[in-house]
Amino acid sequence: MIVVMKKGATAAEIGSLIARVEELDLTPHPIYGEMHTVIAVVGEAVNVEPEMFLQLPGVETVTRIGHQFKLASRQTMPEDTQIALNGTVIGGSKLVVMAGPCSVEDRTQMLETAHAVKEAGARILRGGAFKPRTSPYSFQGMGLKGLELLAEAREATGLKIITEVMTPDAVPMVSQYADILQIGARNMQNYGLLNAVGRTQRPVLLKRGMMSTIQELLMSAEYIMSNGNYRVMLCERGIRTFEPMTRNTFDLNAVPLLKQLSHLPVIGDPSHGTGRWDLVAPMAKAAVACGADGLIIEVHPKPEVAISDGPQSLKPERFAQLMRDLKPLAQALGREL
Amino acid sequence: MIVVMKKGATAAEIGSLIARVEELDLTPHPIYGEMHTVIAVVGEAVNVEPEMFLQLPGVETVTRIGHQFKLASRQTMPEDTQIALNGTVIGGSKLVVMAGPCSVEDRTQMLETAHAVKEAGARILRGGAFKPRTSPYSFQGMGLKGLELLAEAREATGLKIITEVMTPDAVPMVSQYADILQIGARNMQNYGLLNAVGRTQRPVLLKRGMMSTIQELLMSAEYIMSNGNYRVMLCERGIRTFEPMTRNTFDLNAVPLLKQLSHLPVIGDPSHGTGRWDLVAPMAKAAVACGADGLIIEVHPKPEVAISDGPQSLKPERFAQLMRDLKPLAQALGREL
Amino acid sequence: MIVVMKKGATAAEIGSLIARVEELDLTPHPIYGEMHTVIAVVGEAVNVEPEMFLQLPGVETVTRIGHQFKLASRQTMPEDTQIALNGTVIGGSKLVVMAGPCSVEDRTQMLETAHAVKEAGARILRGGAFKPRTSPYSFQGMGLKGLELLAEAREATGLKIITEVMTPDAVPMVSQYADILQIGARNMQNYGLLNAVGRTQRPVLLKRGMMSTIQELLMSAEYIMSNGNYRVMLCERGIRTFEPMTRNTFDLNAVPLLKQLSHLPVIGDPSHGTGRWDLVAPMAKAAVACGADGLIIEVHPKPEVAISDGPQSLKPERFAQLMRDLKPLAQALGREL
Amino acid sequence: MIVVMKKGATAAEIGSLIARVEELDLTPHPIYGEMHTVIAVVGEAVNVEPEMFLQLPGVETVTRIGHQFKLASRQTMPEDTQIALNGTVIGGSKLVVMAGPCSVEDRTQMLETAHAVKEAGARILRGGAFKPRTSPYSFQGMGLKGLELLAEAREATGLKIITEVMTPDAVPMVSQYADILQIGARNMQNYGLLNAVGRTQRPVLLKRGMMSTIQELLMSAEYIMSNGNYRVMLCERGIRTFEPMTRNTFDLNAVPLLKQLSHLPVIGDPSHGTGRWDLVAPMAKAAVACGADGLIIEVHPKPEVAISDGPQSLKPERFAQLMRDLKPLAQALGREL
Repeated sequence: MIVVMKKGATAAEIGSLIARVEELDLTPHPIYGEMHTVIAVVGEAVNVEPEMFLQLPGVETVTRIGHQFKLASRQTMPEDTQIALNGTVIGGSKLVVMAGPCSVEDRTQMLETAHAVKEAGARILRGGAFKPRTSPYSFQGMGLKGLELLAEAREATGLKIITEVMTPDAVPMVSQYADILQIGARNMQNYGLLNAVGRTQRPVLLKRGMMSTIQELLMSAEYIMSNGNYRVMLCERGIRTFEPMTRNTFDLNAVPLLKQLSHLPVIGDPSHGTGRWDLVAPMAKAAVACGADGLIIEVHPKPEVAISDGPQSLKPERFAQLMRDLKPLAQALGREL
Repeated sequence: MIVVMKKGATAAEIGSLIARVEELDLTPHPIYGEMHTVIAVVGEAVNVEPEMFLQLPGVETVTRIGHQFKLASRQTMPEDTQIALNGTVIGGSKLVVMAGPCSVEDRTQMLETAHAVKEAGARILRGGAFKPRTSPYSFQGMGLKGLELLAEAREATGLKIITEVMTPDAVPMVSQYADILQIGARNMQNYGLLNAVGRTQRPVLLKRGMMSTIQELLMSAEYIMSNGNYRVMLCERGIRTFEPMTRNTFDLNAVPLLKQLSHLPVIGDPSHGTGRWDLVAPMAKAAVACGADGLIIEVHPKPEVAISDGPQSLKPERFAQLMRDLKPLAQALGREL
Repeated sequence: MIVVMKKGATAAEIGSLIARVEELDLTPHPIYGEMHTVIAVVGEAVNVEPEMFLQLPGVETVTRIGHQFKLASRQTMPEDTQIALNGTVIGGSKLVVMAGPCSVEDRTQMLETAHAVKEAGARILRGGAFKPRTSPYSFQGMGLKGLELLAEAREATGLKIITEVMTPDAVPMVSQYADILQIGARNMQNYGLLNAVGRTQRPVLLKRGMMSTIQELLMSAEYIMSNGNYRVMLCERGIRTFEPMTRNTFDLNAVPLLKQLSHLPVIGDPSHGTGRWDLVAPMAKAAVACGADGLIIEVHPKPEVAISDGPQSLKPERFAQLMRDLKPLAQALGREL
Repeated sequence: MIVVMKKGATAAEIGSLIARVEELDLTPHPIYGEMHTVIAVVGEAVNVEPEMFLQLPGVETVTRIGHQFKLASRQTMPEDTQIALNGTVIGGSKLVVMAGPCSVEDRTQMLETAHAVKEAGARILRGGAFKPRTSPYSFQGMGLKGLELLAEAREATGLKIITEVMTPDAVPMVSQYADILQIGARNMQNYGLLNAVGRTQRPVLLKRGMMSTIQELLMSAEYIMSNGNYRVMLCERGIRTFEPMTRNTFDLNAVPLLKQLSHLPVIGDPSHGTGRWDLVAPMAKAAVACGADGLIIEVHPKPEVAISDGPQSLKPERFAQLMRDLKPLAQALGREL
């Protein structure tokens, strides 16, 4: 921790800071500059929030050194985490594509989509049975019935299933059906839910909140991991900015940065990252080009009648075309699809 | 709903849009402009998301008309909602101030703070027993023990209690102790939690998420109200922007705008809105000047040792000074403190 | 400057950093922590950008200590700057209100508005003769003819004139007419223009860019002041955020923060800060409540036919009502209007 | 234009809106919905800002239909603009890479960099002689001497030159040396400067402002083009968001969106888009993958002593590696490097 004193801080103020640091069993190293005195604080103390020093007289700024995530950090585990799911490995050299509709709507829609995305090369089927909707008057998902349809589609195709879980008490039920539990962007800091999925052994896809920093995303992964579940994937799905022409701003910088900072697999979501089907293909390619380990893409047989996320859903034939285009791209990057 | 067709949309495209609209039992009104054809769609259909039309060929934009919040809207209920709490009325001409520490830390801290804020004129005591923290390694709150200390402070001072609830299953327990349930910024779109507090009859203070629009805040109030609990207060507590010198950007525009759009009381939180104790007093005054019905302010007897939010907590004497300064200001605005 | 080395930085890396620091005639103070080595660098070197150290091997972060603004800093000049303009003083205990239309449109409009705002208590008349417009096809202002109409309105009412200057070469001409030169938000970092107004002795109102930090605003003031013109006012006029219901987010936190950091007067612009006339009055009050030294407000006799900024312009009678309401508010805050 | 009236707007209010529309020689089409009356306005009137209707009683919202950019629009010119520069074509199937230091610092640095980037396959040499710096105390560029060094490097290598111009009066001088004029992010809405470069016939690289929308970028291109200079390239260089780990958020969504909306070439700037050299290579690949026509990349022989932008500059050998990696990627996308 680095404490910078204000210009003209008095000896008494500096002394009282040093005393406080020593009280906490930390070691102060004062450096007397021309303008500012700086105190470097060495040692680590549980439950010491650097910010508390800001209230001492004469203190200008306090800066924490190093990151707070430990289990998610690449410094802790230098090798890439690989998550195996009966034959599919997420985080290896092979890219993994998850695809399917935003919401599970009915049996025909699910089976039709499942067969189509499998055919095109997807390994995992997505579909929401519990939907976080801005309005209480919007469709909230089919619930248990939706989970059953997902299971039926898995049975029919062999695809693995990813679906969202929204409340801690639903975790056991959803885990019975899902191969991967999805934590949605709005729930990235729903700590009760993070703890609950952390206590299962199901792989978790953790979506970045639409206004969450990369550091906060990693801290939320840390919540899950510190409960014992290490099989976490990080998902960049766009952040909220001032730009109105796209639903979100797809922050692809996060992809190589997360790969640097963490050993966890990183998945790109160009559907939410753009909000427009006509941008999904180019941005899926961009996500792969900057190092994503996989993609999650919304596909719907009839986007024009989709109950949710129609504008960002690809039709099956467009998805198939994208998969064909991704193949040579993956190769040029030294990966496979 | 207004559908704007692309320049050069064909008659077939326009026809297929019109057909789709009629299929949904809505009435299309096409207007043929020089550049664009526009179709105004009259009628209301449950479960029709305007966005679905974006996937039809030739469609450029779709715009919803009117707001989606109903119960929270001032058009539905033109008079101000007033929330009575044994003698204290929130949303009337008298300003209500809630004050206390970020976290309940121990008995002495709570009782000392409770007496001090009461003395200064606060009506409601705040204190967190369950704390949403970015890091799983930070102090997570005292839990039930913290609730008991809050209750003891209420007993000792007669102040009402506001405290945060974080998970749906904790709602019954927290409701036993709290006079007002607080939904924190990170949980503004935790719909399971909104539904759970909506099923109680406890007043709810709903904080705007740091990434949430004013419209979304009102939709989250709608979740609570549509469950039957109409006693909701809206709280502006700062949003996240690019400015690094303050913890958040206190969006006071939201205060008069929420008063216009909704009948619910609006509370300002200058502690989180700024993140710096030295800005709390001026911004508390600003919140009152633009029409807030009350304030929630962090006060700690020793901010320099506070476990959380020390940098934005006022010492009791500074809080008392602020309360003295607010009195003439309230009068000049035709209100009382 | 504080340099934090990566975990596991080698002795060679630390040594090479130290060597580089000494090469620049600065003094390194290494502190060896448990995780990270930190090097505090003492001394000041012209043309050393701290960021350059980021390229040395083993360096994790570099942090500058202290602020870069000097002439604008309150540490340099602890007393408030007061700008006197024949009887009106900006930055003293008396609030100064500037009012008038967005654009000068014609003689009747200007004279009518000038008389009305004077009557209501404004001291300074605003009006744009050169208009920065997003579209090259929009009205670009009346130019010289507009300046003449402003001068005529000054003659007729005794009000002082503020008007925007957009290019360096127009500074001499605009200075002949204007009592205060306005630098618009889009030009806050137009350094050629800042230098040009810095070489005059006309007072300057410097508007914060819609994308600019508080630190950058002060650095732009520094450009003007370092050219010799010390009569600078800082203006908060709203920043761009994700919130779509208001044109800008009025960042009033900036007002008390600028007053702390700088001795320069601070003016609030609730017209641009909100973009909606129905929010102007409450936010004008809020700006005064948190310490603004004055206000700049758009007033138009017929906002519904205004060529620009109609939606945020007050009618004269609403402006007069606001001025009446501000009087007791100013008094309650220990100021006058 | 679409005008939505408030719920409960009176017949008189609707009548007065219709009268106003007809006054402006536009045609109103009222549609009477269940909740809201909507008036679609057909026709185009010069100098009518839709926003002015917001001031009429009973009006809730006003929405413009269609885009305001014309010359830059793909609807106006469906084919890609190709800018030829003695053998190099920007906007064709071949990607064009511009590379070089942030600032021109001295003769050796320029010549060494020029030879290195040419060797690696760059076609255009970048280097700043006039530098927009946040602080007036930072290095402001070598000026004319810098331009001469750029010309010397062109002579020595055959590379074309791109360099920034900051003020209207410097345009003739800079045009004598530069093959491409760069408008920096801070000057994207410096309309005097846009007009000045629009009056030359030099190709212009127009950088998106760090908080400018895609629509505003296109409107700024429109300023240049409406002056007669059609050879404009659009450059995405990162926008400002809340994320602190990167200097900017590289908004690659803008790349395919600009290609859809406009016929102008689009260039990606991963150096400013990330601010970190270790993210430049993956994000350069991402920019190419989503459709950029070229890249502009900062390269410096010794980034650790660069006067500006050292942290985001690549060393020549890393740049050469990136160029080698881009080759198969370009091929996989059906392009060449």
